[in-house]
Amino acid sequence: MTNTQVTLVQIDNYGPWTVTPEPRREADLQTLQSRLYADISQFVGNRDGYVFFTRFDNMIAVTNGCSLEDHELLQESVGNRYPVTLSLGVATGTSPVQALADATERVQAAGSAQDKDRRECLDGRVIEDPHRTDEDLQIAHFDVVNATGNYTDELNAFDTFIEIEQGYAELMRHMRYAHDSLSFFVGGDNIIVVCPDLEEDDYEEAIHHVDEAVDVELQVGVGRGKSAHDAGFAAKHALETCRADGTRVELEW
Amino acid sequence: MTNTQVTLVQIDNYGPWTVTPEPRREADLQTLQSRLYADISQFVGNRDGYVFFTRFDNMIAVTNGCSLEDHELLQESVGNRYPVTLSLGVATGTSPVQALADATERVQAAGSAQDKDRRECLDGRVIEDPHRTDEDLQIAHFDVVNATGNYTDELNAFDTFIEIEQGYAELMRHMRYAHDSLSFFVGGDNIIVVCPDLEEDDYEEAIHHVDEAVDVELQVGVGRGKSAHDAGFAAKHALETCRADGTRVELEW
Amino acid sequence: MTNTQVTLVQIDNYGPWTVTPEPRREADLQTLQSRLYADISQFVGNRDGYVFFTRFDNMIAVTNGCSLEDHELLQESVGNRYPVTLSLGVATGTSPVQALADATERVQAAGSAQDKDRRECLDGRVIEDPHRTDEDLQIAHFDVVNATGNYTDELNAFDTFIEIEQGYAELMRHMRYAHDSLSFFVGGDNIIVVCPDLEEDDYEEAIHHVDEAVDVELQVGVGRGKSAHDAGFAAKHALETCRADGTRVELEW
Amino acid sequence: MTNTQVTLVQIDNYGPWTVTPEPRREADLQTLQSRLYADISQFVGNRDGYVFFTRFDNMIAVTNGCSLEDHELLQESVGNRYPVTLSLGVATGTSPVQALADATERVQAAGSAQDKDRRECLDGRVIEDPHRTDEDLQIAHFDVVNATGNYTDELNAFDTFIEIEQGYAELMRHMRYAHDSLSFFVGGDNIIVVCPDLEEDDYEEAIHHVDEAVDVELQVGVGRGKSAHDAGFAAKHALETCRADGTRVELEW
Repeated sequence: MTNTQVTLVQIDNYGPWTVTPEPRREADLQTLQSRLYADISQFVGNRDGYVFFTRFDNMIAVTNGCSLEDHELLQESVGNRYPVTLSLGVATGTSPVQALADATERVQAAGSAQDKDRRECLDGRVIEDPHRTDEDLQIAHFDVVNATGNYTDELNAFDTFIEIEQGYAELMRHMRYAHDSLSFFVGGDNIIVVCPDLEEDDYEEAIHHVDEAVDVELQVGVGRGKSAHDAGFAAKHALETCRADGTRVELEW
Repeated sequence: MTNTQVTLVQIDNYGPWTVTPEPRREADLQTLQSRLYADISQFVGNRDGYVFFTRFDNMIAVTNGCSLEDHELLQESVGNRYPVTLSLGVATGTSPVQALADATERVQAAGSAQDKDRRECLDGRVIEDPHRTDEDLQIAHFDVVNATGNYTDELNAFDTFIEIEQGYAELMRHMRYAHDSLSFFVGGDNIIVVCPDLEEDDYEEAIHHVDEAVDVELQVGVGRGKSAHDAGFAAKHALETCRADGTRVELEW
Repeated sequence: MTNTQVTLVQIDNYGPWTVTPEPRREADLQTLQSRLYADISQFVGNRDGYVFFTRFDNMIAVTNGCSLEDHELLQESVGNRYPVTLSLGVATGTSPVQALADATERVQAAGSAQDKDRRECLDGRVIEDPHRTDEDLQIAHFDVVNATGNYTDELNAFDTFIEIEQGYAELMRHMRYAHDSLSFFVGGDNIIVVCPDLEEDDYEEAIHHVDEAVDVELQVGVGRGKSAHDAGFAAKHALETCRADGTRVELEW
Repeated sequence: MTNTQVTLVQIDNYGPWTVTPEPRREADLQTLQSRLYADISQFVGNRDGYVFFTRFDNMIAVTNGCSLEDHELLQESVGNRYPVTLSLGVATGTSPVQALADATERVQAAGSAQDKDRRECLDGRVIEDPHRTDEDLQIAHFDVVNATGNYTDELNAFDTFIEIEQGYAELMRHMRYAHDSLSFFVGGDNIIVVCPDLEEDDYEEAIHHVDEAVDVELQVGVGRGKSAHDAGFAAKHALETCRADGTRVELEW
């Protein structure tokens, strides 16, 4: 049974900071947001977790393997090197969406995202090492079938982007409401989904749903593991099988 | 009349590189993509342009003010510091979508995104300094009305994200098909749109359309200028007027 | 008794890479070197170690707390994100210089720094967790007495730099030959030294030696701990005592 | 005749910031310093200038080609993305040391490096475009003859480092006092020197001096140009001639 540990990473008071005392150059905000995300990706990724950029001022991470001390260190390091600070909420559970909801509540309970006084809150629970198993995570890695041939080399780059976005928007809603899963676009034509215990049928149904709804054809590799990296890496390998064999759903177990 | 200079930035052979000889750690790919984007944002931004992360392997930039030599230098600098290289196509025109389509064709003509031999192509035309005017760019900066109060402090972080994404997906399609405009989510609840010569009515209609379609309430500040930064910064200031006065559409001229 | 774990980090084939097929822009090499160092500093630092930029193509780290698997992960992450790769040698011992010499031999035995075939070698031994103690590290943090008043606000910036460099060059030789210690300039007027079991007299003698030799007046805080961070942080606090009390040598135990 | 434009880059109030309210993790300070330097290297380097890390809180740049508006933009961008700010002093002249001294005075006149109120001062003069010539810069690129064979593959990494440092310390003093030049270690076994109009004899004498004083054998390539990049790149090519032909001094003109 899956047991996903989810962390909500929220920049403290970011909206006001971006316009105080004056609005800041957009290119600098983009640089700051991207580099902050990249640093968190290294920190969490080096502990075998995954973090998704999401909205950049709010980022969602799968942190099985990270202790509360690790979370505290991340806050301290960011506070030492950036002009902003982070609040973190951590929760766990069989349903990724429920874990994320609990993690969100931890942060909301501490104060508003634009509370001028709330800074560097850290609250929540982690899965202790003895309780971790190889089935804690189930990660699905979707991509668009032959995106390069069908879109990238054919359409203008924005229309290709629209197609990918429509596919993502449809999959994200379906996986969240039908399967309690969290879906994230990660670049190119790739979407990574954090799932509870789903079956092959669930993935075939999701792919069919997206094809019917927006005419975007997906394939998926699925993996399980003790950490987001273990499950996600297995999913990447399963996806290579789809590419090699022309199949649409491959489970790595 | 607007005269937008658009550059398509495409990483050469990225798909194959990410899985050769083996798939690479996802956290490292995310870090690489984000930091590459951040560097391009600084390079283009320091010349008063904007670049949007789009799909990360394909990025769209508004480069009024950047010469072909500047584009060449960007390629050289990235080639010296990253394990990947960039191909660039540049085009200009009154319609942002048309300019982007022409820029895309420049890159596509040079070879596939997954062509194992195509590397560091640079092709296209820029607007020479004497021909630049203060009306070349029209940039609109949308955000969600009271996102913090309505969503961030109330819903779980993924459901907030879904709302923002639905708003973005709807606006992006509407602005592209009705107004030849290019829309980009830039973090938080913000969407920046690169437009041709639009009127106040066009923006009111767009906001109404999104509200009707997905029940997400937007407001917008619009600016014009000689560069993306000039127009975008004016748009940010106009958006502050919306926030201060409770209006929904503010044009900075 | 100290037991320092030292890692030599050497970029593979860097000299030839910087000039093949042509010399590369110096500003890009500086950016690459500095960002690579910064990444290693985060990786090692998050595990409570220290890494010093040294010569940038060869960096010396104090890695008590890092396992061989950690070293392997660092190599993999760098290989995924940079156009260069790293070889690592790890060794331990009561003498920091001896540990560093043993670590160097591990890398040299694998091949020349400019061997066109040697890539990503990893060899050596770490101190296993059960064998770690609170006395494994002794770190001294020196700085120049009132550098700002005596130099920075008075001399031109290069002459100030010369003074600091002369002080560093003198201290580095003295600490290496008299005390088997490794000294590193870390910016500003600060020098961090990795020591074996030294006494207060040894530090007073070192300060006196440098003053006599090059007329640069130093003060020092010294700490001990299970990791470079623990010992170094204690040393920083001891240095604050020097600043507050006007003393020249403060030991945090 | 050379006409070097030198900028002193000084972080405002850095010493106090690093220990307020408490000392900060050393690894984070190293990361911050290195990434700030890397960003300045990109900004200045993209305008064909050079910046040297020097003491990290004080950095020396050769900024021929950068206007005062460019300097102001650099300050603004850093202020938007870092928890610290920069003060900049700019000056020009036939003597690099004199230009650096004048640049330093500009900053010192604005206030102490640890003045709790001095922030983002910008003062000085640049060389306007019509007055720039191909002889404004003379840059020398020294390295140690066969460093890899004589040191890196033979000695322990710290003793190699000591040799390089002694060579640098000797060259830096000689070039400053005998030739009004500014010398910077840039990694590996490389030293870049910013010179006035020197002759081949001056370089042969400098090499002889260092060999006699500390038994470190150097070779040098020298270039001239309108910018630091132009001159420095020519110097790199000249150094390749030394390597190929076994000579010790090569001038690219």
